[in-house]
Amino acid sequence: MTERRVPAGVHIIGTGLIGTSLGLALTRSGGTVTLEDLSSTNAALARDLGAGQTSTAAEPDLVVVATPPDVTAACVAAALERWPAAVVTDVASVKGLVIDGLRSRGADLTRFCGSHPMAGRERSGAVAGRHDLFHGRAWVLTPTPETGADARALVAEVARSVGAEVLTLEPVEHDAAVASVSHVPQLMASLVAARLEHLAESSVALSGQGIRDVTRIAASDPHLWTQILSGNATAVREVLVSLAGDLDGVIEALEALGADDDAPGARGTLARAIAAGNAGHARIPGKHGAAPTAYATVRVLIPDEPGQLGRLFADVGSTGTNIEEFHLDHGLGQAFGLAEIDVVPAAAAALSDGLEQRGWRLHG
Amino acid sequence: MTERRVPAGVHIIGTGLIGTSLGLALTRSGGTVTLEDLSSTNAALARDLGAGQTSTAAEPDLVVVATPPDVTAACVAAALERWPAAVVTDVASVKGLVIDGLRSRGADLTRFCGSHPMAGRERSGAVAGRHDLFHGRAWVLTPTPETGADARALVAEVARSVGAEVLTLEPVEHDAAVASVSHVPQLMASLVAARLEHLAESSVALSGQGIRDVTRIAASDPHLWTQILSGNATAVREVLVSLAGDLDGVIEALEALGADDDAPGARGTLARAIAAGNAGHARIPGKHGAAPTAYATVRVLIPDEPGQLGRLFADVGSTGTNIEEFHLDHGLGQAFGLAEIDVVPAAAAALSDGLEQRGWRLHG
Repeated sequence: MTERRVPAGVHIIGTGLIGTSLGLALTRSGGTVTLEDLSSTNAALARDLGAGQTSTAAEPDLVVVATPPDVTAACVAAALERWPAAVVTDVASVKGLVIDGLRSRGADLTRFCGSHPMAGRERSGAVAGRHDLFHGRAWVLTPTPETGADARALVAEVARSVGAEVLTLEPVEHDAAVASVSHVPQLMASLVAARLEHLAESSVALSGQGIRDVTRIAASDPHLWTQILSGNATAVREVLVSLAGDLDGVIEALEALGADDDAPGARGTLARAIAAGNAGHARIPGKHGAAPTAYATVRVLIPDEPGQLGRLFADVGSTGTNIEEFHLDHGLGQAFGLAEIDVVPAAAAALSDGLEQRGWRLHG
Repeated sequence: MTERRVPAGVHIIGTGLIGTSLGLALTRSGGTVTLEDLSSTNAALARDLGAGQTSTAAEPDLVVVATPPDVTAACVAAALERWPAAVVTDVASVKGLVIDGLRSRGADLTRFCGSHPMAGRERSGAVAGRHDLFHGRAWVLTPTPETGADARALVAEVARSVGAEVLTLEPVEHDAAVASVSHVPQLMASLVAARLEHLAESSVALSGQGIRDVTRIAASDPHLWTQILSGNATAVREVLVSLAGDLDGVIEALEALGADDDAPGARGTLARAIAAGNAGHARIPGKHGAAPTAYATVRVLIPDEPGQLGRLFADVGSTGTNIEEFHLDHGLGQAFGLAEIDVVPAAAAALSDGLEQRGWRLHG
């Protein structure tokens, strides 16, 4: 085991959201960070925000390539040549693409350990950078067989030093995993949301919490997602083909039911599609990566008047209950919102009583 | 205009979630409610919960058929015959099916006004019933050309008397609308979640907030959804065919990119899919049916220790800020959660200062 330390010199290439956030985090913990960007304006902005220095570095211990994915392999290869003793990592959200590019360039893979901090935001660029962007997030390492143990240990150390949780996957496993848990959900959210583009206003008005949740990430940036999806084209396509096969089965079943309400097997196809979703959904880890826990839910009606949610917060706080989850659900119309407060089952009665004593109407 | 009043006698057929909740709500506001269910046990349970009486009614003013959708038309037709002066409504989540069934039975449509209270829950049955289930929810009326003005007014009045917001759509419009904003999102959430059913544990571990939101409703009941989807087969199929067409385009583009990273037009297809999702997502009404409002977001790091969320609630409450939205985001690992508190832009600085003074670490 390598000792835990902040590396003496980290050089960051690319001062967008991830590069700048990493610079801010490492600088705060006493590391020496130098910054580089194709745009000298971007680099100067990140420097002015406190992410590091733009002066030329001595040979760094670690080079972090935080460029857009389509130029990552070229940048990593150049860095490996320019600093022949440094360890190099990248932070692209697709990994096979980068390694293929490095192999085709004959790069020295012993000093390279690719990685993927799973810490996106809905905004991009240096100004969106935050020193605590990586706190409690997964940072996946994707070493190849050639990757040296030192290189791997150094990248893990840097990830941990900024508060991330380190996981390790093979590059191809990583790309298949993010295809299923990130890239395909993004695409399907976009395709569902696109159905609303030309829908009548009176129909869109029926949108409830379900479609809001399903399509929340449909607000994401088309330019970035085009790069991500095209960089992971093969793995994403494979998952989509499987999904499209199930979708075709559902469409056929609905067509059969449209023609004959008693069509044999059609209802079975629909039920199996929903049941498979139940089974897949149940596998998603709960809070903090743990298995989902059964909490008791206290539901409180919130009149839509100024200050009511703040008052609820004060009242919940004054009961001293340990809140596990809080979810706010808005109905249509002006009347009420519904707050769902999850607590351990043993605490539910006391919270309910406390809130009723303070004049809140509980839902049920 | 009919005067606002609680109808003297409401007879509810079907004492599941919706029927029982309606009985509870009407009974509380002083109405006379009688209950009927194919299962006398169910009816007695709803009565014992306070939803109404099971004794035989005099001719009711209004009959509400709250059965599963596949038997709704038959029940409505029988009710129209049994009580020749009463108005009848139903609450099925698909409307064309019911009206077709009534027409084929030659029912008297002047006294029928179909409706759909958009107030589902993740649980079903009389015990899940709540008197405030309809507060602030949309209740869609779907009159036909034959529907009498009195019938329509009476159903609207009952919906408003239990706190719902009344909207009116033609039956075919309603079914097309819920296909797009409810049934297709449900199916796609299920199909996305189903990709996880056989995924390796180490891959599922990368699940972040995006897939959690997209698949939240994938936990829904297969039996109920099979009825809903088969009851709206034609409208759902139409939306799915359009979605499947876009999906095929995306799959082709990814296939082309897998073969040739420079495939002409492929990136344009991907970008257009994401951009159309942006446009559709932007049309979803914000809180309370109003247009989305730009709030300022204050982000607070929450250490994962007992009592921290409760302490945050108390501190936010003590700043006296009017909270518009509250969202809790869990990272991976044990370290931190992130609370996002939306307030009007003018209130953000005071809330941030107040929380920092009380020792909270803000995110950025």
